[in-house]
Amino acid sequence: MLAQLPPALQNLQLPLRLRLWDGHEFNLGPEPSVTIVVKDPQLVTQFTHPSLDLLGTAFVEGKLEMEGSIGEVIRVCDELSQALVDDDEGDQPIRTVHDKDTDAAAISYHYDLSNEFYQLWLDQDMAYSCAYFQTGTETLEQAQHAKFEHLCRKLRLQAGDYLLDVGCGWGGLARYAAREYGARVFGITLSKEQLKLARERVKAEGLEHLVELQLLDYRDLPQDGRFDKVVSVGMFEHVGHANLQVYCEKLFGAVREGGLVMNHGITAKHTDGRPVGRGAGDFIERYVFPHGELPHMAMMSARISEAGFEVVDVESLRLHYAKTLDFWSKRLEANLEKAAAMVPDQALRIWRLYLAGCSYAFAQGWINIHQILSVKTYSDGSHGLPWTREDLYR
Amino acid sequence: MLAQLPPALQNLQLPLRLRLWDGHEFNLGPEPSVTIVVKDPQLVTQFTHPSLDLLGTAFVEGKLEMEGSIGEVIRVCDELSQALVDDDEGDQPIRTVHDKDTDAAAISYHYDLSNEFYQLWLDQDMAYSCAYFQTGTETLEQAQHAKFEHLCRKLRLQAGDYLLDVGCGWGGLARYAAREYGARVFGITLSKEQLKLARERVKAEGLEHLVELQLLDYRDLPQDGRFDKVVSVGMFEHVGHANLQVYCEKLFGAVREGGLVMNHGITAKHTDGRPVGRGAGDFIERYVFPHGELPHMAMMSARISEAGFEVVDVESLRLHYAKTLDFWSKRLEANLEKAAAMVPDQALRIWRLYLAGCSYAFAQGWINIHQILSVKTYSDGSHGLPWTREDLYR
Repeated sequence: MLAQLPPALQNLQLPLRLRLWDGHEFNLGPEPSVTIVVKDPQLVTQFTHPSLDLLGTAFVEGKLEMEGSIGEVIRVCDELSQALVDDDEGDQPIRTVHDKDTDAAAISYHYDLSNEFYQLWLDQDMAYSCAYFQTGTETLEQAQHAKFEHLCRKLRLQAGDYLLDVGCGWGGLARYAAREYGARVFGITLSKEQLKLARERVKAEGLEHLVELQLLDYRDLPQDGRFDKVVSVGMFEHVGHANLQVYCEKLFGAVREGGLVMNHGITAKHTDGRPVGRGAGDFIERYVFPHGELPHMAMMSARISEAGFEVVDVESLRLHYAKTLDFWSKRLEANLEKAAAMVPDQALRIWRLYLAGCSYAFAQGWINIHQILSVKTYSDGSHGLPWTREDLYR
Repeated sequence: MLAQLPPALQNLQLPLRLRLWDGHEFNLGPEPSVTIVVKDPQLVTQFTHPSLDLLGTAFVEGKLEMEGSIGEVIRVCDELSQALVDDDEGDQPIRTVHDKDTDAAAISYHYDLSNEFYQLWLDQDMAYSCAYFQTGTETLEQAQHAKFEHLCRKLRLQAGDYLLDVGCGWGGLARYAAREYGARVFGITLSKEQLKLARERVKAEGLEHLVELQLLDYRDLPQDGRFDKVVSVGMFEHVGHANLQVYCEKLFGAVREGGLVMNHGITAKHTDGRPVGRGAGDFIERYVFPHGELPHMAMMSARISEAGFEVVDVESLRLHYAKTLDFWSKRLEANLEKAAAMVPDQALRIWRLYLAGCSYAFAQGWINIHQILSVKTYSDGSHGLPWTREDLYR
């Protein structure tokens, strides 16, 4: 039995209750909004040093339980961690070799989890990336629709354009571009589950004459400049810093002169890409996005430029992603019983923390998201873009 | 007497005539639009290797003359250079130590040349930076006015805001922000001539209660976060790569939390900042902007981020600057006699080449210009910006 709190915890004023395996409770401050139930006695000694990775891992492994709203759990755990963990500890960048096999395995780990699970909390089109809230009061469905529209407008998409969608997910954007703009779309993914459902949806909507989807690695993209435009949403995070150059070169080879390329993805706070957040990066690497590596927007812009593109428009949508993830997290929390029937308990624990945690991380500014629009400028220096961005907002 | 062209020139098909000191003429192709008059026999041997720096320097030194419109002269000289000069020759970055003395001298060299000379070809407000053409059909005056407005909108400028204008030039933007938005403005420059005329104009408009202008180095800016917003137009090009970090830190120290910072400036094509253009960079360094160093937009974004800012919006205005410089060049060309009475012959030759040449360089994509908007995000991760950029286009 533990007679008292470890000294490190005694002087904290946090709305947090610790409940031990034997029923003993300690309040770290008045009116606790969150209870951490410590089920494994060995954990207590580690509580002098509660990184977000430590707390998250213990939760995933069932060594502790969290009571309270998941958003509040994340917030209070961050305060706990902030009080006791050196900001620079942990969160060293984990650089792994990325090749076709490791990338395929990493993508499968996350995206092949369960289509019905993702359907439970994503919007109807299953857009699994930052939505676009024009006023902040939209529904998730409206905001994902607006995201598709914003991307198509930035690409100045026109009927007959041949659009490459790199990392097409469940095909929501591909179908939108075909249906609303009359574009021909070639979409690629490394997730078999995504591909299966995405193809079904293309067929159900009668868009097979416009939308072709394939299981294909970006390194195998045709290099004959056949595409008029390229869109890549939530994909470059998986490429790895060392491969970003090849990735950008493959896009350059795939698109014609004058073609616009949109890279929309999560970006690091630090210019060298090292994670922020007292161990949260380690948790994400281990359980959520193995081999994920976030580039800073400057690093991504540099690689894009070095491949030969000209960067013409960059927009941060950081708080849009905080809001998007908050929608997803709340939907999942409202459907935990259904979710538990769809995925293993450990996966559910991981996704609960990850969705609420990343919403928090975007809101705090630990991570960012940038839409980076670039153009493969003609050899005479022209690019065919309008003088201003006003057309995006008509 | 030269009996025939050097072999290297014999097989070129260019609309170019060479006229020698003795009256002999050689056409490099049918219907020449440009004539280069070679006045110095020693130049001919160098014509096997006519970098833009060589041609420009010879023109500045009076060793050759150019006949034809200045824009066509630039174009044909580039084609000549392109045919005979290795693209990688010359144009090594010239990195010099930047301190307060060297910066003051470099700024004085360019900007203290002659106020009346600049008035001859700039717009009425003497905005000496890229204008903003909303449709491409505007006059220079309209487009410079639109540039002021675009910058103020991006900064979400409000009445009472305390705006720092770093590199305020002749004060056009400072007066616009005060007059149209009711902002208080503190503008700094290192050019005594600019300051003198800028202050006269503030006084003439009765804006002394709102606009204060000082001769001040950016390293001496107050570091107490007193400013609500910062605008820096055409200034970071003079800072030098090695000092960009200090420059960004000084802006960070000068602005309050939640404050927006606009860096609008010329950017390099290559990510390491090395110049493009067969010697044109050397010419600019020697005669036009001594100690100027263009950062790539990724380099600039990295330095801005490392100082603590969040990059929220980037826009390339490359073709706007090509058009702006074309306006300036045409105005100067139409007033060469007046100009000759204002500045030494050598300066006039330099500015003629520089204005037409930089218009060409922007049009070709050798250099770019980016407006990089960043924010000193609050510690809770908020930044107070609207959800979208739609307000810029109302």
